Formats: sequence, structure tokens, C-alpha cells
Amino acid sequence: MPAYATNMRLKFPILALTLEIITIILFSVFVVYDDGEKHDGHGDHGNSNTVIMYPMTSTKHDVHVMIFIGFGFLMTFLKRYGFSSVGLNLLLAAFALQWGLLMQGLWHLDADGKIRVDVFKMINADFSTATVLISFGAVLGKTSPVQLLIMTILEITIFGINEHLVANVLGANDVGASMIIHAFGAYFGLAVARVLYRPALRDHENNGSVYHSDLFAMIGTVFLWMFWPSFNSAIANPGADQLMAVTNTYFSLAACVLSAYAISSLVEHKGKLDMVHIQNATLAGGVAVGTCADMNIGPFGAMLIGFVAGIISTLGFKFLSPILASHLGIQDTCGVHNLHGMPGILGGIAGIVAVAMGKKNGSAAMQACALASSLGFALVGGAITGLIMKLPFWGQPPDQNCFDDSIYWEVPEEEEAEESLAHGEHSTNKAEA
Amino acid sequence: MPAYATNMRLKFPILALTLEIITIILFSVFVVYDDGEKHDGHGDHGNSNTVIMYPMTSTKHDVHVMIFIGFGFLMTFLKRYGFSSVGLNLLLAAFALQWGLLMQGLWHLDADGKIRVDVFKMINADFSTATVLISFGAVLGKTSPVQLLIMTILEITIFGINEHLVANVLGANDVGASMIIHAFGAYFGLAVARVLYRPALRDHENNGSVYHSDLFAMIGTVFLWMFWPSFNSAIANPGADQLMAVTNTYFSLAACVLSAYAISSLVEHKGKLDMVHIQNATLAGGVAVGTCADMNIGPFGAMLIGFVAGIISTLGFKFLSPILASHLGIQDTCGVHNLHGMPGILGGIAGIVAVAMGKKNGSAAMQACALASSLGFALVGGAITGLIMKLPFWGQPPDQNCFDDSIYWEVPEEEEAEESLAHGEHSTNKAEA
Amino acid sequence: MPAYATNMRLKFPILALTLEIITIILFSVFVVYDDGEKHDGHGDHGNSNTVIMYPMTSTKHDVHVMIFIGFGFLMTFLKRYGFSSVGLNLLLAAFALQWGLLMQGLWHLDADGKIRVDVFKMINADFSTATVLISFGAVLGKTSPVQLLIMTILEITIFGINEHLVANVLGANDVGASMIIHAFGAYFGLAVARVLYRPALRDHENNGSVYHSDLFAMIGTVFLWMFWPSFNSAIANPGADQLMAVTNTYFSLAACVLSAYAISSLVEHKGKLDMVHIQNATLAGGVAVGTCADMNIGPFGAMLIGFVAGIISTLGFKFLSPILASHLGIQDTCGVHNLHGMPGILGGIAGIVAVAMGKKNGSAAMQACALASSLGFALVGGAITGLIMKLPFWGQPPDQNCFDDSIYWEVPEEEEAEESLAHGEHSTNKAEA
Repeated sequence: MPAYATNMRLKFPILALTLEIITIILFSVFVVYDDGEKHDGHGDHGNSNTVIMYPMTSTKHDVHVMIFIGFGFLMTFLKRYGFSSVGLNLLLAAFALQWGLLMQGLWHLDADGKIRVDVFKMINADFSTATVLISFGAVLGKTSPVQLLIMTILEITIFGINEHLVANVLGANDVGASMIIHAFGAYFGLAVARVLYRPALRDHENNGSVYHSDLFAMIGTVFLWMFWPSFNSAIANPGADQLMAVTNTYFSLAACVLSAYAISSLVEHKGKLDMVHIQNATLAGGVAVGTCADMNIGPFGAMLIGFVAGIISTLGFKFLSPILASHLGIQDTCGVHNLHGMPGILGGIAGIVAVAMGKKNGSAAMQACALASSLGFALVGGAITGLIMKLPFWGQPPDQNCFDDSIYWEVPEEEEAEESLAHGEHSTNKAEA
Repeated sequence: MPAYATNMRLKFPILALTLEIITIILFSVFVVYDDGEKHDGHGDHGNSNTVIMYPMTSTKHDVHVMIFIGFGFLMTFLKRYGFSSVGLNLLLAAFALQWGLLMQGLWHLDADGKIRVDVFKMINADFSTATVLISFGAVLGKTSPVQLLIMTILEITIFGINEHLVANVLGANDVGASMIIHAFGAYFGLAVARVLYRPALRDHENNGSVYHSDLFAMIGTVFLWMFWPSFNSAIANPGADQLMAVTNTYFSLAACVLSAYAISSLVEHKGKLDMVHIQNATLAGGVAVGTCADMNIGPFGAMLIGFVAGIISTLGFKFLSPILASHLGIQDTCGVHNLHGMPGILGGIAGIVAVAMGKKNGSAAMQACALASSLGFALVGGAITGLIMKLPFWGQPPDQNCFDDSIYWEVPEEEEAEESLAHGEHSTNKAEA
Repeated sequence: MPAYATNMRLKFPILALTLEIITIILFSVFVVYDDGEKHDGHGDHGNSNTVIMYPMTSTKHDVHVMIFIGFGFLMTFLKRYGFSSVGLNLLLAAFALQWGLLMQGLWHLDADGKIRVDVFKMINADFSTATVLISFGAVLGKTSPVQLLIMTILEITIFGINEHLVANVLGANDVGASMIIHAFGAYFGLAVARVLYRPALRDHENNGSVYHSDLFAMIGTVFLWMFWPSFNSAIANPGADQLMAVTNTYFSLAACVLSAYAISSLVEHKGKLDMVHIQNATLAGGVAVGTCADMNIGPFGAMLIGFVAGIISTLGFKFLSPILASHLGIQDTCGVHNLHGMPGILGGIAGIVAVAMGKKNGSAAMQACALASSLGFALVGGAITGLIMKLPFWGQPPDQNCFDDSIYWEVPEEEEAEESLAHGEHSTNKAEA
């Protein structure tokens, strides 16, 4: 077994501890509590008003649940990769929210050179985390924890630049982040996946689900689906705008479910539903309505967007993903192109159209620039990041160990099969006693 | 294989897409955002005041979690029907909340003929959804997605009529909806199940659980249990009434757990606990205290109701359900009669008594009429709906394919058992390399 | 089969029903609704102000999720003990929150001799529940439901005394309850475990996990991780103090994840990660920052505490737990010493240091007394409770049936393994049809 390269015993602990210690030092220099008073020398769109702190706290929790339960369990669909999916999701998210707070905060320092942590900044930190987790989906099963930590550092840094450009320089609308999170995260991850392409992974025997792993994934799907209105409304203006963002997302998602189910049945063998579509395409409505969420597009406008997103996403899984894998060398484990990529672009375009139609103050040209900027940073940044991740000493798993927890995790033996076959009882004494 | 009748490839997509397109058109005509101003020509018990929007948003999330996670996972207890349970739950709920918003809204149009979507209306839409999901439990495993969509349309329409009658015409109290949701949904579903009765389904080999499916179901149980206080208090008057509803439900549920566990042990083989009782009867206290939740019955009064509900529900599972199945031809897959039916009636009766004792303003006679109306609409509406569902072209599964996902879903092979048996031992190579 | 002693058929139902009936009677005497007015003759730190009721309601829900989903699923890691973990967790918690409300309320009666239930008191009831569930982790798999109910009564009573002493007599700070819940619950449970020591349980074949049971446990871990900021801030002063408690806990937990993963990889075979560490040690930062959560220690101070806690906890699982089991006769099934015990003491010490450094008003000596009191009551109370639980008529499971649901639960046959081996289909017809 290739223990020489993939043994994480030194490189992973050293990297993780070093990163955390650096982060703690940076926090000691830059980060202070929010004391409720104004310190902003320049435009900070944060708001530490305690009157609105509580609803934001509730929203923060919803976003938190999406990040840690939603993304984490959505990726447990693989038959032998559940520990990594939910476990590495926790690791990357826990680091990303610290790093994201720094990378976003550095663009919005208060007059005294400090970053004041309030609920708004914590939500934004969760947002930057989402970007990384989307990209994680594209490379799931094919990368080591060390590679993923490196991706996290670079992606969040680049995300911070693009987000600053889109929100502050271009002044574009993207309240639900169709462009700056979903499209960015997807194409960043796809660029990484393209650079890391390995032909031998095609039709890998472990790149599939089993019955219960698909049920675990549905925990992720349903939590994402339920709390997406909070995601898209989290940084909307409180009051009518925020309620509009909730309403639009709610109905876009509902319409998306119907179209995703219908198309799944239409394109599958004997009209059967496919769990991959249900787990993912039912969420495309939340992605696609993101940019327009706080625009006056009408509930039926939101439903149309969701309806189309569900169709595009399901068709993408069925017809486009296989082509990307076989012709373009893009192996997209979770199909993030279908859930976040195309719906993210759809959301960006819908935003351009809606702004052009006067549904929200803004410039359609700036909206288009924001979409282009997000795609450009994602593709270039992802390609560079992929090249760095491809360096041979980060412990990338060999082909035959991909999509398999046991290369990086202590995995208990599956008693159901083995034990009953062998009738020899070797329990794995995990708990020390 | 009976592909002729159960193939969903055309009938399901056409129905789903048609329903969604009709819904979008109806939304474009009737539904607008709530702008926080008053447009109500007549008595709307909604409230778009932004001061109370935030706590309602939090409550809405809790109800949402109950609908999508709670009901969805509660029904995953069947060994081979988890995809359908959580997946069709999502499909039906996503359609039902759109349809419910229309069907309830049409009774409360604003002066300009519009339905203004606010958080209150979204909660009510979730409520109508609950009714369908309860009935779904009675027919779980024996119906096609097409049949279920038809049931959803009809049931929500009838629910809207009964709800209008109970709340607006009779003026009855039913804050936690023991009568209009729980009893209605249960007896509607039981009437459908009676019409669809099939003797061959008795002792069906797939109508049972496996170890991990019972654990998935407990996810549903616990989320329902935790958030039930929000369900029962969601439309209570803010302030003391709402806190009373939370308090009553909280303690009713707590007392119900103790009695359900005790009776489960008392009636089972060697005093063992039965997962079916634990998954369901522990929730009966939430159902039974619903009508009285905002009445001044005292915490111990709520506990007494919960205590009794836990006993009745457990005994129902043990003794009554087998009789219903064998003597009355009512095959109640999830035992909704024990969780929602009898506790719902108990709740209605408790409401009559409490109003008669002056615990809340109202008329005991109107309370009794509300209970009778809910049962009547449920039984008649359910029977008619069942007859429509029984038409031979909706793709109902043949007896031998009931309680089995694989008739409507692509199901991955169970490698753990099959593969390792077939190929000797390479499959569980998951353990330590 | 040892049906003679472990048959719960009479002793469990009688105990459960009796306890619930006594509780209902006590509620009828003492407990009334909170009506929003002041009735406090003496110092009650409760607050029934409806302005702050809503955020507290949200916090209460988070704590509720931690208690019922978090603790419940965290303990499902054992391969054959999932029903008991999540099921008995529900039973004990449902009883404990009723009993806890009484035991805590008796120390804070209003002038008219009543306990007024408000959201604050419900949170405190959940808190006392947490203590029992921590101790449950130490004795998981080795005790009967009857023994556990007895433990619940005694532990909550003793907890109420210590909490009153620490908070009201000593006036010590312990906002996140590192001392009075975590250290107390852990050492109470360890004392019980020591008294119930059984040498034959060493290397028990069922004391281990399987793949999917570890994934169920991660549901618990992630929900605990996400909502811990609510736990530590629930009873903090609203406003800046509460935001500080949220912020400190949030970053302590994030830093803790990195150090726990790093140390897990460093100490394990070939640098692999161990699920036991990930499920537990990632949470140690929440425990350890508890006492200091509302103190002005700076975000980086909180991160340092979390960083150290993650290291100590992981090392404890790896090196200390085996020694406790083999040399001291302390079999700690869930490793609560590593998750709650040592991090709780660390939290207490951090509190002493922080108060001594003036990070919060208070007396370092009183903080030290609070820690000593919590440990003293835990060890003495746990030992006495253990002796009572050791009496031979409570139905303790025989050695060979430990860590196995089937002694107290109807368990469906595992079709995956058995059925396919035997090719005989005897499904367990649990649902009546």
C-alpha cells in the first residue's frame, strides 16, 4: 500500500497546527469584539445595532446549519466516503470561517485598524466558507486533507478579492450570491478538477452510492432546501426587502422541486426517479434566484426562475456531466456544475435582465461585469490553485484509493457483511475501555 | 416486470409540469408581496407587522423543519422505502405549500383581489401541507407519485373549505389544529386507505423496518418532538397566549414520553420497548394538546392530556391497528390513526371541555361542530378522493412491489451484502490498509 | 436468556408511571404560567420580559436541539446500541426537564410559593438535563432504563443543590457551565461508572462502531458544534455580553477543530484520523470556553482555550482513557472524561485566571470554590448514586448483553446480512397491516 506518500502523520498535523497558530496570531492583532459603537472610517456595510442583532442571529444559525449539516451530509452520498464528506467538511469549514473573517475583514478595517466581529461578519464568514465547500464537491474523493487546506487558503483569499470588486467597486447586486459564491465556487472547483484530471478514475467502482448513503445525503438536501431562504435574505436590507428575498427564494425552490422531479422521471430509465437529481437539482432554484432575491420580480417571476433552474440542473446531470468527464477531462464528483455552476450563471443573467427592467436600482452593465469577474477569477484562480495542489508532495490518494475513507481514516470493519460471513468476531475496539 | 402500468415516464412528468405551470399562472394573477400596509377589506387574521415578523420567521422555520425533516424522516422506518418517504414527502410538500397558499388565500382575498404573502400565510401553507403528509402516512408504500399528487390537490382543497368553516364560520378554537389538521388528515387518509384496500398486502414482507431505517425515523421523531411547541403556538396571539401555547405543548409532550415508554414496555414481549411506539406515540401529546394549547388549562392540565395521549396512542398501535387491518380493511402503514387520529379527537374533546369550563372564550357547541365538521369532511372527502385514486390508470404499484422504492426509483445495489457474497471478500476492503 | 432479572415488564412501567404521576401532582401544586408580571420576593435572575422573550425562544430551541438531537445521536456510534442511545436519551431528557424545572424552581419560589414557567426557566431545565445526559455517556450500554431513571432523579437533585451554591451562595461566574454542567456531569458519571465497574466488559465485542453508526453519531456532533454558542450565551446578559459569549464560543470551537484533527492524525496509526476523536474532541472548545464565555478575554483568548482543549481531549482519548479503564476500573463508554471532564476543569481554571486578571467582576477564590464544589458534589453524589444503582433488583444487563439494544428493545432482524445469507425471508412485521 502506498503509505509513503499518503501518510498524513507529519504533513497534515504540521500544516493544520501552523495555520491555526498563524490565525490566532492574526486574530490577536486584528480582531476585537463588536461593542455596538461606530468605528467605521469608511464604508462598512456591517451593522451592529442590537435591535437587529437577534433576527440576524437566527439567520446566522440557519446559514450555519446549511454549511455544516447541509453541505456536509449532501456529500455523504458516496458509498465509502461519508467520514471524509462530513468530517473534512467540518475541518475545512472551521478553518474557512476563521480565514474568511480575516480575508473579508481586511477590506473593511475600522479606522483604528481593527476588525469588529459582529453577527453580520460571522454570516459573511460562513458565506466565504460556502465557496470552498462547493469547490470541495468537485474534487471530492480525489484529494488529500493537505491539498484541501491549501485550496481553502487560496480560494478564500481570491474570493475576498472578487467579492470586494463586485460589491464595493462595481456596486453590483448579488444578495443571494448566485455569482460570487455559487458560480465562483463551482467554476473554481471545476478548474481545479480539470488540472487534477486522472483518466483512471473514470467509472471508479467506489464512485457511487449505496442505499443508506443516499438517505444520509437527503439530510443535507432537505436542510439546505429549508434554510435557503435565510441564505438569500441574510444580508438583504431588513424589512420589506428581506421578506421579499425570503418569499422569492421560498417559491423558487418549491417550483424547482416539481420541475426537477418531472425531468428526472422523463429522462430516466422507465420513468424512474434518480436520487442524484433529487438530492441536487431540487436546490437549483435557490441558487438561480439568488441575485434577484431582493428584486421586485414577483413571486411568479421567482417561480419561473426556479422552474427553469430545476430543468437545466437535471438535464445537466443526465447529459452534460458525462460529456464534461469524457471529452473535457472534468471529473465533477458531486455535479457542482449542475447545482451551482449553471444555475449560478442563470442567476447572474436573471439579475442582469431584472436590473435592466428596473426591478432594482443598479446598472445592468455592472451586473454583467460582476458575472464576468466572478467567472474569470474562478477559472484563473482555480487553475493556479490546481497547479499548486498538483505538486507531488501533498499526499494525493492513488487512483485505487480514491473515493475511499480508509486511506485517511480509521474505518471500522463492516460487521454486517464480514462478521456474518466469517462468523469470526473481531470487533473494532474504537472506544478505549 | 409490470412496466406497462407503473411506468411513470409520461404520466408523472406531464402531471407535475402541468400542475406547476398552472400554479405559476395562478400566482401571477393572484399573489403579490406583502408590503407591510393594510389592504384587508375583510377579516384577515394575518399580520404583516414587521415588529412581529422576526419571531414568526423563527417559528416558520421550526414548522418547516417539522414538515420536511420531521414527517419526511419519520416515514423512513420502512426497510426499503426510504427514498420514497423522504423524497415524495419533499415533492408533495413543495407542491402542497404552493397549492395551500392559493386555496387558503382565496378565502381571504384582499380588497384588490390579491393574496399578499407574508410569514403568517407561509405558516398556514405549511399547515395545509401537514394535512397531506399525515394522509400520506396512511397510504405509504401502496400508491404511485401520480396518485399522491392527485390526493394532494383534492385534500388541500377540501382542507381549505373545512378550515374556513371551522375558523371563520363556526369561530371555533383550534390553535394547534388537533381537529382541522391532525384528525382531518388522519381520517382523510384512513378513508383513502379503506377504498384502496388490498387483501394481498397483509403481512407484506417489505412492510417492516431494519435497524438503520429505524434510526433514520428517529431523526424525524426527535425533530417533530422538539419543534412541536412552535407548531401549536405559531398562530396564537403574540405574548402571553403564545407563551402559554409553548408551555402547554412542551409539558404535554414531556409527560407523553413517559407514558408512551411505560405502556410500550408493559404490553410488549418480555417488557421490551417497541420502536414503532417510541417513534410515534411520544408525539401524541403534541397532537392532543393542540386545540387547548392557548387555553388556561394549567401546565399540569397539559401534562394530563399528554399523559393520556401517550397511553391511548401506544395501546392503539398494539391492539387497535391489527383489528382495523384485519376486520375493517384499513391498512394504516404508519399508524396515523394512533398518532394523529385518536389523539386529534382527544384534543377536540379536550377543547370542548376546556371551553365549557371557561378556559377560553368560545362556545362548546361550536367546538363540537368543528370536530364533527373536520371528521365529516375528512371521511367523505377521503372516500371520494380514494375512489378517484382507484381509477386504473394512475400507475398504482402491484402488490408485490409495494413498500419498495425500486418501482419508482433507481436504487443502488446493496454492495455490502450482495457483492461480498458474490465475489468472496473484496468489497469490504474499507478497513485498515 | 436472563429474563428473570432484566425483564422490564413490571418494574420499568411502574417506575415511569409513578414518577410521571408524582411530577404532575407537584406541577399542579407549584407550577403556573408566567404572566409577564413580577412576583419575585427574592433574587430571581429570570426575566419574563416579552421584549426579550423571542430571542430567548430561539436560543431555547438551539439548546433543545443540542439536548435531544445532539446528545442523542452523538451516542449512536455504538454498532448495536442506537435505539437505546437516541431512545433512552429522549426518555431521560423528557423526564429530566420536568424534574429539573421543579428542583431548580424550588430554590427560586416566587413570593406566593409558585414557580412561574418562562423561557428562561425552560432553558435552565434543559441545562439540568444536559448534566444527566453527560453522565449517561459514561455508563452507556451497561445500565437498565430503571437504573438510569434513578440516576436522573438523584443527579438532578444534587445538581440543583450545587448550582444554587455556585450561582447564588458563592456568586461565581459560570455562564456556559463548564463547571456546574460539564465537569459535574462528567465526574458524576465517572463515579457511577467506577462503582458499577465490571471487569468482564473489557474489550467487549459490541463496544465499537460500524460505518453507518459513526455517521449517525456525526449528526449529533455537528448539531452540538453548531449550536454551542447558544448554549454558552443562553443565560448571559442580553446585548454586548451575550454577543461576546457567542463570539468567544464560535471561535473557540473553530480553533478546537483544527487542533483536534491535527493531534488525531499525529497520534494515530499511519497518520489516519480517528472518528472517536472527531466526534468528541472537536467539541471540547465549547466546553472549555464555557466559564469564560462572557468575559473580555478577546477572540484570540477564546481561540487559545479551544486550541488547547482540542489537544487535551484528543490525547485523553488516545492515552488516558485506556489507563483509566485498565488501572482505575473506570469504563467510560463515550469518553466523557475527555469531552466534558478535563475540558470542564480547564474551563474552570481559565475562569479563575480570567477573573483574577480582571476580565470579569468576581472573585478568583469564589471561582476556585465553585470548581471544587462542583467536583466534590459530583464525585460524592455519583458514588452514592452508583451504590444505589448497584442494588441487584434494577435489572442491570448481564455482561454478555451489554452494549446491545436487543435486551431492552424489539430489534428488527438485519436483513442485509442475515436474509441474504439464509435466503429465508422472515421480515419483522412491525407495522400492523
